[in-house]
Amino acid sequence: MSQRVRQKQSDAALRKTLCEFLALYYEKGWFGGTGGGLCAALDMGRVLMAPTGVHKERVRPADLFVIDPKSGAIIHAPKDVALCPSECSGIFSLIIQQRGAGSVVHTHALSSVLAADLAGNADRVLFQDLEMLKGLAGCANTDRHAVAVVRNTPREAELVARIEALIALPPFAKSHCILVRDHGAYIWGGDLWEAKRHAEVYHFLFEATVARRQYGRPLPLSGGEK
Amino acid sequence: MSQRVRQKQSDAALRKTLCEFLALYYEKGWFGGTGGGLCAALDMGRVLMAPTGVHKERVRPADLFVIDPKSGAIIHAPKDVALCPSECSGIFSLIIQQRGAGSVVHTHALSSVLAADLAGNADRVLFQDLEMLKGLAGCANTDRHAVAVVRNTPREAELVARIEALIALPPFAKSHCILVRDHGAYIWGGDLWEAKRHAEVYHFLFEATVARRQYGRPLPLSGGEK
Amino acid sequence: MSQRVRQKQSDAALRKTLCEFLALYYEKGWFGGTGGGLCAALDMGRVLMAPTGVHKERVRPADLFVIDPKSGAIIHAPKDVALCPSECSGIFSLIIQQRGAGSVVHTHALSSVLAADLAGNADRVLFQDLEMLKGLAGCANTDRHAVAVVRNTPREAELVARIEALIALPPFAKSHCILVRDHGAYIWGGDLWEAKRHAEVYHFLFEATVARRQYGRPLPLSGGEK
Amino acid sequence: MSQRVRQKQSDAALRKTLCEFLALYYEKGWFGGTGGGLCAALDMGRVLMAPTGVHKERVRPADLFVIDPKSGAIIHAPKDVALCPSECSGIFSLIIQQRGAGSVVHTHALSSVLAADLAGNADRVLFQDLEMLKGLAGCANTDRHAVAVVRNTPREAELVARIEALIALPPFAKSHCILVRDHGAYIWGGDLWEAKRHAEVYHFLFEATVARRQYGRPLPLSGGEK
Repeated sequence: MSQRVRQKQSDAALRKTLCEFLALYYEKGWFGGTGGGLCAALDMGRVLMAPTGVHKERVRPADLFVIDPKSGAIIHAPKDVALCPSECSGIFSLIIQQRGAGSVVHTHALSSVLAADLAGNADRVLFQDLEMLKGLAGCANTDRHAVAVVRNTPREAELVARIEALIALPPFAKSHCILVRDHGAYIWGGDLWEAKRHAEVYHFLFEATVARRQYGRPLPLSGGEK
Repeated sequence: MSQRVRQKQSDAALRKTLCEFLALYYEKGWFGGTGGGLCAALDMGRVLMAPTGVHKERVRPADLFVIDPKSGAIIHAPKDVALCPSECSGIFSLIIQQRGAGSVVHTHALSSVLAADLAGNADRVLFQDLEMLKGLAGCANTDRHAVAVVRNTPREAELVARIEALIALPPFAKSHCILVRDHGAYIWGGDLWEAKRHAEVYHFLFEATVARRQYGRPLPLSGGEK
Repeated sequence: MSQRVRQKQSDAALRKTLCEFLALYYEKGWFGGTGGGLCAALDMGRVLMAPTGVHKERVRPADLFVIDPKSGAIIHAPKDVALCPSECSGIFSLIIQQRGAGSVVHTHALSSVLAADLAGNADRVLFQDLEMLKGLAGCANTDRHAVAVVRNTPREAELVARIEALIALPPFAKSHCILVRDHGAYIWGGDLWEAKRHAEVYHFLFEATVARRQYGRPLPLSGGEK
Repeated sequence: MSQRVRQKQSDAALRKTLCEFLALYYEKGWFGGTGGGLCAALDMGRVLMAPTGVHKERVRPADLFVIDPKSGAIIHAPKDVALCPSECSGIFSLIIQQRGAGSVVHTHALSSVLAADLAGNADRVLFQDLEMLKGLAGCANTDRHAVAVVRNTPREAELVARIEALIALPPFAKSHCILVRDHGAYIWGGDLWEAKRHAEVYHFLFEATVARRQYGRPLPLSGGEK
C-alpha cells in the first residue's frame, strides 16, 4: 500500500499497515520486552490500538482494539479474549484530543530514556543545530526545539494529568513529543505516516544530542529548570 | 503461530518456535560464535534443548534434544549423531526445578558481560529507575532489582553449585536472571514467550545501566559487597 | 541484476536498483525521517531522482523524477501528482556537472553529523591511517584525505553557492564528499555502484574517526582553520 | 544445507554457502565499501575465492575463482572477464599452507581497526577474562590469548612477508587471527563453518576489549612491546 494514498486507506489496509509498523519499530528497538504501543485513527470517533503485554512484532490485524478517543471506551474488541487494551489509551486519547493527532507512537527506546536523563532536574530538553528538526511539522532547522519531560509514575494512567498540564504550556506548542523520565516517549503526527516520520526524527534528535554530550558539547540551556 | 495460543502448542509447533527464536536471538547478538543456548519445557517431565557448539541460527526442529529436567537424562536425541546436548543442561535443569521456569535463555551478549563488570567485587548488580522493570513478572518500576553475579568457571557444569547457592538467597527471589562474570547470563520465564520478554527486558537493563555509568551516573549501592 | 553489467542497465533496471538502494540505505540509518536523497544518471542529459518528503524505503520505480542536470528542469514527473522533486536537485546537478558524477547519495546518518562536528571552526575534516581510503577512486591508504565542511542553511537550495565555491578548491580535488554541518553529507561516484562503494567507505571513515577521537587520539591537523 | 554435513558439501553447495556468508558478513559490517574477502578450500589443491572490488553481498556462485593455494595460480576463472581475483590471495594461501586452514575471512570491521589500535606500539594485543575464548579451537576461557598486530602496507601483497614472520612465533601458535593496523583482520578455521565461529568470536573479543578500555579497565600487558 503506497504512502501516497494514505488518506484513502480502508479499515483493513490501516490495520495491516499498523501491524507492519509494529514489526518495524520492534526491529528498531522501540518495543522491546512487549513494551511500547501504537494507535491510529480510523476516523474522528474511532481509533485502532495495539493490545498491551504482547510481543508487538507478532500482533495481527485482527488483534487490534477500536476505541473512542473522547470517552476512552472500547468500541470493538478482538475475538481473542486474552488480549487487553493498551494501558496507554488514556494518554493516547489525551494527545488525540488536545493536539489533533491522528496517530501516536509510544516508544521504549534506550535513546529516549537517555535523552530524558539529559534534562537533569529541568522539565524539558532542548534540541538545536540539527537539520532533522525540519522533519517535524511546523519546525525549522534554526529552531531551538523544546520537548517536555515528565516524571514517571507506577501506572501509565496516572501520567495523564501530568502530561495534560505540561503539553498545554506555550513553549511546547510546536513539539510532537513528550519524554517520560526513565521510561520512554510519546510521539505523534497527523496520521500513521507522519507519526513514523516524527518518531524517526525524534529518535535521531535523542541519539545525536546524547552523543554530542558524550564528547563534551554543552546542552542548550532553557529557563525551565525547577 | 500466535503467542496467544501458546499453552496449546503441539510438540512440533514448540520445536518450530524454539528454532525461530534461536535465529532471532542470533540476529540480536546473543548467540555469536555458536555460544548461548535455549530450552523450553514440553511438559513437566520433558524439556526441548538446543544442541551445543553449532551455529544457533541454523538449528532445525529435528536437531533438538529432549531431556528430563529432574535427572538431566536424555529422553530423546536427534538422529544426527554429530549433535551434542548443551553444556548448559545442568544449569537449565536447576533453574527449571528451583524456580519453576518453563524456558531458559543463555545469552552471550556483550551487554551482559559489561553488566556483570559493573558488579566489581560485589555478588550482585542493582537495576532501578527504569520503567522496563515492569516487564519482569512480579516487579514494579519502583523496585531496586537485584541480580546475582557469579564468577565464571572453566566448565559450565561447575557453575551449577554456585548458581544453586546464590539464587536461593532472599534478595534474588524476584529476579529471573543470573549474570556470570566475563561470560553472559541465564534468563528465564514461565514459557518461551515470557522468557523472550524477560530476556529483552534484561538486555535493556544491561544496556541502559552500562550507558548511564558511562556518563557518570552512580550505580545503586547494595549491601552485597564482599 | 548483476553489478557487473551495470553499464548495460536499462531505464527500468536502473529505476529498480535505485529503489532497492533507497530501501538499503534506509536500513543503514542514512534516510531516517524521510530525509536524504539519491539520484543516478540514465545518460548525459537525464537523471533519475527520488521524490522529497516521503519514506524513502517505500519509493517505487514509478515514483522517480527525471531531471535535466544542466538546467535542473523536470523532464518527466511521476503520475502521482502528490510527489515533489527533491530539494537536493540543485546540489545534485552541481555535483554532476562540476565533478562528472553519475550518482549522488545525500545521507542524514548520525555519523555524518558527528564527523562534521569534528571540524570545529575549520572548513574541512581530514581522514588518514585507514585502509578504507583505498575504496575511494584515486586515493591510497597513505593519503591524508580532506573533505570540505560547509555551514548549514535554512533551505537546501541556498547551499549550492557555498558548495560550488568549496569543491572547486584544490585540496578537495580528490574527495567525493561534502559534509554539511549539523545536517549530513553529499557523496558521489561514477555510477550508482561506485556511489554505493564511496558512501559505505565515507560512513566508515566518519565512524572510525569519531570513535578514535572518543579515546583521545588527536585529529590530523590541516591548514584550513578559519 | 545443514552445518552438520559440511564435510560432504559438493562444489556447488560450497559455492552457495560461501556466497550466503558473503551476504551475511556484509550485513554485519565486515565487508563495507567492497572491502574484505573470503575463501574456502574445495580440497587440498583447490580453493574457492571471492573476487575483489565488488559489492560482496551480491557475489554469485559463478563469480568465484578457484586458485591453487601452493602456487597461487588461478585454476579456474569466472566467465565474467570483468572480475579480478582477490588481492588477498597471497595472504590466504600463506595461512592455508602455514596453518592448515580450510577457510579464511578477511574483515574490515570497525571493531577490528579499533582492536589493532589497542596495541599501541606493541606487536600484539592480548585478550582475556572472556568466556568466548572457548569458541576458539584449542583455547580455554582462562587463557591469555595473544593476537599478532602487523603494520599496514600500501598493497596487500606486501603484507605477506610480515605476516609470515609473525605467525611463526610461538606466542601466536594458538591464535587463528592476525590484526593489520588501520586495516582489519585475517581470521581462519578448518572450514567455512569453523572460520565463521572464529570470526564471530574474534569480533566479540574486539568489541568487548575496546568497550572495557573505554571505561578505564587496564589492558593485559605482554612482553611484546617494541
